[in-house]
Amino acid sequence: MNSQSKPDFVEEVELRGHIIDSLLLPKVLDTITASGGTFEIRHITVGTNRNDPSHAVLGVYADSQAELDELLAQISDHGAVPTAGQDCRLVEADMDGALPEGFYSSTNQRTEVRLNGKWIELESQEMDCGVVVDVAKATARCLPMTDIRRGMQVVLGHAGVRVFPLERIDTAHSFSFMNSSVSTEKPKRVVVQEIARNLLANRNGPGKSLLVGGPAIIHTGSGPLVSELIQRGYLHKLFAGNALATHDIEQSLFGTSLGVNVQDAQIAEAGHEHHLRAINRIRRAGSIAEAVDTGVLTSGIMHDCVAYDVEYLLAGSIRDDGPLPDVETDVLVAQRRMRESLAGVNFCLMVATMLHSVAVGNLLPAWVKVVCVDINPSTVIKLADRGSFQTVGLVTDVEPFFRSLLIELDALEGAS
Amino acid sequence: MNSQSKPDFVEEVELRGHIIDSLLLPKVLDTITASGGTFEIRHITVGTNRNDPSHAVLGVYADSQAELDELLAQISDHGAVPTAGQDCRLVEADMDGALPEGFYSSTNQRTEVRLNGKWIELESQEMDCGVVVDVAKATARCLPMTDIRRGMQVVLGHAGVRVFPLERIDTAHSFSFMNSSVSTEKPKRVVVQEIARNLLANRNGPGKSLLVGGPAIIHTGSGPLVSELIQRGYLHKLFAGNALATHDIEQSLFGTSLGVNVQDAQIAEAGHEHHLRAINRIRRAGSIAEAVDTGVLTSGIMHDCVAYDVEYLLAGSIRDDGPLPDVETDVLVAQRRMRESLAGVNFCLMVATMLHSVAVGNLLPAWVKVVCVDINPSTVIKLADRGSFQTVGLVTDVEPFFRSLLIELDALEGAS
Amino acid sequence: MNSQSKPDFVEEVELRGHIIDSLLLPKVLDTITASGGTFEIRHITVGTNRNDPSHAVLGVYADSQAELDELLAQISDHGAVPTAGQDCRLVEADMDGALPEGFYSSTNQRTEVRLNGKWIELESQEMDCGVVVDVAKATARCLPMTDIRRGMQVVLGHAGVRVFPLERIDTAHSFSFMNSSVSTEKPKRVVVQEIARNLLANRNGPGKSLLVGGPAIIHTGSGPLVSELIQRGYLHKLFAGNALATHDIEQSLFGTSLGVNVQDAQIAEAGHEHHLRAINRIRRAGSIAEAVDTGVLTSGIMHDCVAYDVEYLLAGSIRDDGPLPDVETDVLVAQRRMRESLAGVNFCLMVATMLHSVAVGNLLPAWVKVVCVDINPSTVIKLADRGSFQTVGLVTDVEPFFRSLLIELDALEGAS
Amino acid sequence: MNSQSKPDFVEEVELRGHIIDSLLLPKVLDTITASGGTFEIRHITVGTNRNDPSHAVLGVYADSQAELDELLAQISDHGAVPTAGQDCRLVEADMDGALPEGFYSSTNQRTEVRLNGKWIELESQEMDCGVVVDVAKATARCLPMTDIRRGMQVVLGHAGVRVFPLERIDTAHSFSFMNSSVSTEKPKRVVVQEIARNLLANRNGPGKSLLVGGPAIIHTGSGPLVSELIQRGYLHKLFAGNALATHDIEQSLFGTSLGVNVQDAQIAEAGHEHHLRAINRIRRAGSIAEAVDTGVLTSGIMHDCVAYDVEYLLAGSIRDDGPLPDVETDVLVAQRRMRESLAGVNFCLMVATMLHSVAVGNLLPAWVKVVCVDINPSTVIKLADRGSFQTVGLVTDVEPFFRSLLIELDALEGAS
Repeated sequence: MNSQSKPDFVEEVELRGHIIDSLLLPKVLDTITASGGTFEIRHITVGTNRNDPSHAVLGVYADSQAELDELLAQISDHGAVPTAGQDCRLVEADMDGALPEGFYSSTNQRTEVRLNGKWIELESQEMDCGVVVDVAKATARCLPMTDIRRGMQVVLGHAGVRVFPLERIDTAHSFSFMNSSVSTEKPKRVVVQEIARNLLANRNGPGKSLLVGGPAIIHTGSGPLVSELIQRGYLHKLFAGNALATHDIEQSLFGTSLGVNVQDAQIAEAGHEHHLRAINRIRRAGSIAEAVDTGVLTSGIMHDCVAYDVEYLLAGSIRDDGPLPDVETDVLVAQRRMRESLAGVNFCLMVATMLHSVAVGNLLPAWVKVVCVDINPSTVIKLADRGSFQTVGLVTDVEPFFRSLLIELDALEGAS
Repeated sequence: MNSQSKPDFVEEVELRGHIIDSLLLPKVLDTITASGGTFEIRHITVGTNRNDPSHAVLGVYADSQAELDELLAQISDHGAVPTAGQDCRLVEADMDGALPEGFYSSTNQRTEVRLNGKWIELESQEMDCGVVVDVAKATARCLPMTDIRRGMQVVLGHAGVRVFPLERIDTAHSFSFMNSSVSTEKPKRVVVQEIARNLLANRNGPGKSLLVGGPAIIHTGSGPLVSELIQRGYLHKLFAGNALATHDIEQSLFGTSLGVNVQDAQIAEAGHEHHLRAINRIRRAGSIAEAVDTGVLTSGIMHDCVAYDVEYLLAGSIRDDGPLPDVETDVLVAQRRMRESLAGVNFCLMVATMLHSVAVGNLLPAWVKVVCVDINPSTVIKLADRGSFQTVGLVTDVEPFFRSLLIELDALEGAS
Repeated sequence: MNSQSKPDFVEEVELRGHIIDSLLLPKVLDTITASGGTFEIRHITVGTNRNDPSHAVLGVYADSQAELDELLAQISDHGAVPTAGQDCRLVEADMDGALPEGFYSSTNQRTEVRLNGKWIELESQEMDCGVVVDVAKATARCLPMTDIRRGMQVVLGHAGVRVFPLERIDTAHSFSFMNSSVSTEKPKRVVVQEIARNLLANRNGPGKSLLVGGPAIIHTGSGPLVSELIQRGYLHKLFAGNALATHDIEQSLFGTSLGVNVQDAQIAEAGHEHHLRAINRIRRAGSIAEAVDTGVLTSGIMHDCVAYDVEYLLAGSIRDDGPLPDVETDVLVAQRRMRESLAGVNFCLMVATMLHSVAVGNLLPAWVKVVCVDINPSTVIKLADRGSFQTVGLVTDVEPFFRSLLIELDALEGAS
Repeated sequence: MNSQSKPDFVEEVELRGHIIDSLLLPKVLDTITASGGTFEIRHITVGTNRNDPSHAVLGVYADSQAELDELLAQISDHGAVPTAGQDCRLVEADMDGALPEGFYSSTNQRTEVRLNGKWIELESQEMDCGVVVDVAKATARCLPMTDIRRGMQVVLGHAGVRVFPLERIDTAHSFSFMNSSVSTEKPKRVVVQEIARNLLANRNGPGKSLLVGGPAIIHTGSGPLVSELIQRGYLHKLFAGNALATHDIEQSLFGTSLGVNVQDAQIAEAGHEHHLRAINRIRRAGSIAEAVDTGVLTSGIMHDCVAYDVEYLLAGSIRDDGPLPDVETDVLVAQRRMRESLAGVNFCLMVATMLHSVAVGNLLPAWVKVVCVDINPSTVIKLADRGSFQTVGLVTDVEPFFRSLLIELDALEGAS
């Protein structure tokens, strides 16, 4: 491609906000050139101070309409909106469980569609969905393709859609700006304090706090610490799998004291029987709640969820033993239940589980604060890769993390 | 506990085979003392040569019958059988979907139960199951607790059950003896050659070869190499998830040449639309097979599975987008289908997937040869931890691994 | 701090070049606010096309002169230069082996100092050094603090110093822009081809290619592949430690065939004697070169370095056994010898060694192309963290990497 | 090789002790067959109780005298001693700095050599050394090859040498028996308590406690916790490198409060100047001790080492900036100084440094207790690989580890 002469296919787009220091403009320019397009900066106003917004108008050029459309789709996710105003294009879904070809694919950022000249915010926001519009009510929402039903009005293409990428608002909390490598060597107390502040705010306010946890919580001896968080009202919801619940119940049923638990951990090979017997005993009781009611289960995280009215969702996986009777074995049903349960959640703590963390991360809008804690940097990196400025990774050991968190909560409670 | 005076509860057990150099005796002695028991070696005959079996009779002591039973349960998994001969104890299952308390919990090692004085080998062998006996037909088999139905005869406790742990037969192939740490620094060609030998033997013989694979197969550009394995008849079955199939199909539908594929990989953020559109297109076609039949899908691993009649099973997980219409979204159904499909499989290659590898590992008897390939040592360690002498871990990069494998297969084919 | 009223301490700075899409401007703005300063954009001209440079003039504000100086120091490394023209400040070093307080600390980017109104480029560029000026000759160079001698003229502060950060020139090669996480899941062939192109260019041209390697090169069986690179003229210099050389020589002296080498790798515990005996035999010969001359050493990487006149430098570490007589045991002397040897090197391949890679990375100017290959992502991340746009990380297995590299070199040679 | 007819070359060896449950006999049998030899168990007595020693006499066969010698050398390290009594063979060293061919290569296990019919224990024990005998004084000691001087009497071969491998004494503390994979998921409190017990015992007794530490101690904010350990008398020696000391001093000189330190950690790129200025300031002072004396350095780990008389050794590496004037830049001199300083050390805590941990591990006899703490499992695995039953790996986060350790020490002090 000769970069001197402009290609024939062009569209004018604009960006607003902190487009320079929040990297939106550089990202858009990079996306254009990385995809083989070119650009021309037609107009730019840069805010003179940190808090002044900027504004840029670009001409975007590509060699074909298809390339241009692809390019516009990509930069639209970074907030670049065509200047030519037009309504979104709608088409009727022609079958159940699938979207029409050319559907608009959603992001996890706040999004509006233009309907009869008016911009309407989506009622639910979730990445990798179609957008379904109720023209009569002038409402729109994200809907996963499996839930599409014939006759629904679906948005096609990027015309009439605008995305508002989250901007970094507060440098004090910009843990990871320009620094996406996850270090195991940094002081972590600020992050733990920030988590504590969020949990406390939600205990006292309307927001809900969600723990997404893996079985290492139990293996590392952190079960009693999570129980304390539940008992003190800091957790409203728990998403986990069969393994966390099983090991928690196994420890409650077969452990007797810390010394013995630790001893058990040593001779883990023999543990598999306890583990199966624990599942079996709950299956015999009917459910975790019934096991609590009948006195079969008297302690542990799952017990406390029942006793303190913490909503829990156990999602199945193909590696499950048993599973426990409460486990939702159909993954699509589990996704739907998670989606419903996430309404109201504004803080999410993900601990020691890649599978459940990614699954929940897929469902969350970008503005929900997420902290991902794992001793393995690769889990944290994977989560952060799909993240927003609100996603913080913490590479640390699970048990001391929860211990520190309780200490910070004590300090905050004492101070308030 | 005073180690001088023997505790009151005692049982005599015996071990046979290469109990010293295959570590069975040391393991049994260690298990006894680690669990707080004591032992007395009443009789020992050690084979004078490498190929002569040994024999040991031990007295096992514990402080209570419960501790003794626990101990016997543990060492029974290493092949230590009570000398006092007795039939297995049976009890009728009192409800659907759960085992009676005290059930015998199976291992993945070859096992026999004694019925009317005769030892009967289990018809299927799988860890973490109950054992169900058909007294009339004098047969027994492993059955997961969810499949138990009221009225079935279930084995209780370890009496009348004997386990035959796999022994190391061939030092030349004992990759990991006494050396469970997984090194990234060792020459790997021997292992690749061994895999090639197994694949070739199964192509020419009755045994079936199974590939359990993760999406990194596609991300690393190994798709065409796996396709070649399929086309040359080296793979009979494929177990994977929605991600592998989706990315494979996405590459087939949206990639055009290697340069462009690679370019795509660079700008992965934009890839999410392709990925969703690929799923959607297959959903619109009805299934992968229908997409092949109607010419929508014309290349790639999934295409070749259809074209070359390789049985595939796509198991769902909560992190799935879509999913593809072929994905089995109920994890219990997926487990059952895997279990059935595993009959006849005697060689299993697990590549770049923790979830599916552990799930399949849970279902396999110990004598099926397994090689687990991953660039991440922790996946390999996790698999090897549940392993037998037949499980080999290979920490290496996926794409060059498949390339080397094809070179070794060429060499073997040329030589034969 | 009240962000409405400007702090009292201010300096005007300017930036030139591709300051938006190469992220210089965002980095500078972020650095200012992250350090508690504020800014005002006084003037900005953004290039309308991809190849047009931009220009920005900022007012930088801080609460004290000390904070302002600190701030200016930091943003100066990203190319922000005070608009007020002034010569660099010089002070005489008052002692050997240490710099005067307030010394200018160098980066690895191209740098000029202003002397008598003229900008002079530094003769050598190395990070973390002082800058010494010869006023009479109007020359300046980087010098590590240990080499400072009393009476030298040393640059103080950032006044009269300007830095030219590398800009991304060529999107086709921008492997890592906006994407610093190191993936193990990407197609790697493009990177291997790029390495091959660089090695070939240097074989045919004046540039020198340096291999910095760890002992895993030998452990993985890659020794013969590196030997082939040497024999074909692709490597001009080798930096390594005692371990690589020792294991290479051990394999040459004690291995007999591939089968046996592999067998040896299996029983590594016994290998420690071979390893020591190898070192001892070279010590008895006097040096590696004498061992080659007297026929003690007849093959392997070190042999080939001697035979094909590849300059090698073995730097000592406290974990060395022996060491070999060629090892430079004083780390400061080793650094000085590396520094001298790096003149002329314009391509550097770092394989499987954290220690040596970081050491060499510290000495290299930013414009030398570096590729870091390791199966462990953390080594690659660590290198990339200190990197420039020219540093590429490749997470892959060492032996297949070298095999692929030779294949790509064959293809390039065939094509040319 | 036909395993039915015995090869011609044979030697009778014996083993004593807990040879079955401490795995010595299995290891010896495995080593023999893995190396292509065969064995015959001529006599075996197995202790009937846990505390009774066993005794075995084996015939070891190989196809050539060279193979047999190699085999005997290997199994001798596991305590298998030829039954035919003979003195050790001595030869005069023929040159400085190298051992005679065929030298006996030492292990880190307790070892005796037979001189004039009497068994003499080595005065110092260190792996990978030669053994030098003073015939007149009837003494022997390990000596690294660089320290060999012409005329010394050096032991050749394995005749007249016997090794006493450490046996597992106490199951309650056998953290890792039969379980060499290092888990991040186990309860760790027992290990921390054990470390606390050892530190307390050494504070009150004659044994010395050594900390071998990396710079992550400072980066993670653990500096004040280590200072507290020093101030309370729990650490007697510190081995580290330039990086730990530099970052500690940088924090002391340039940090002002926790908030600011943490802030600094965020903007680490700018930190490099502080880091260099810290080194420079100490170089200007002459040494760390002089900087303490003159009031330049008033806090931190290095300050406290000076103030509380903790011996420290800073060993150089090629990646060092500066370095600090106290750094020993010659690695051979550093090794000698470490060797001398290790006399009296019976407990060693290695934290977050691969290089220094392996270096010190190489110098320690097997009976010194070592705990290796790192968030990266590969460091811990590498250490444990060369370990004895006394080496414990702890995969955890550094800062919470030290915090837990201080809590356990408080509890122990309170209890005593």
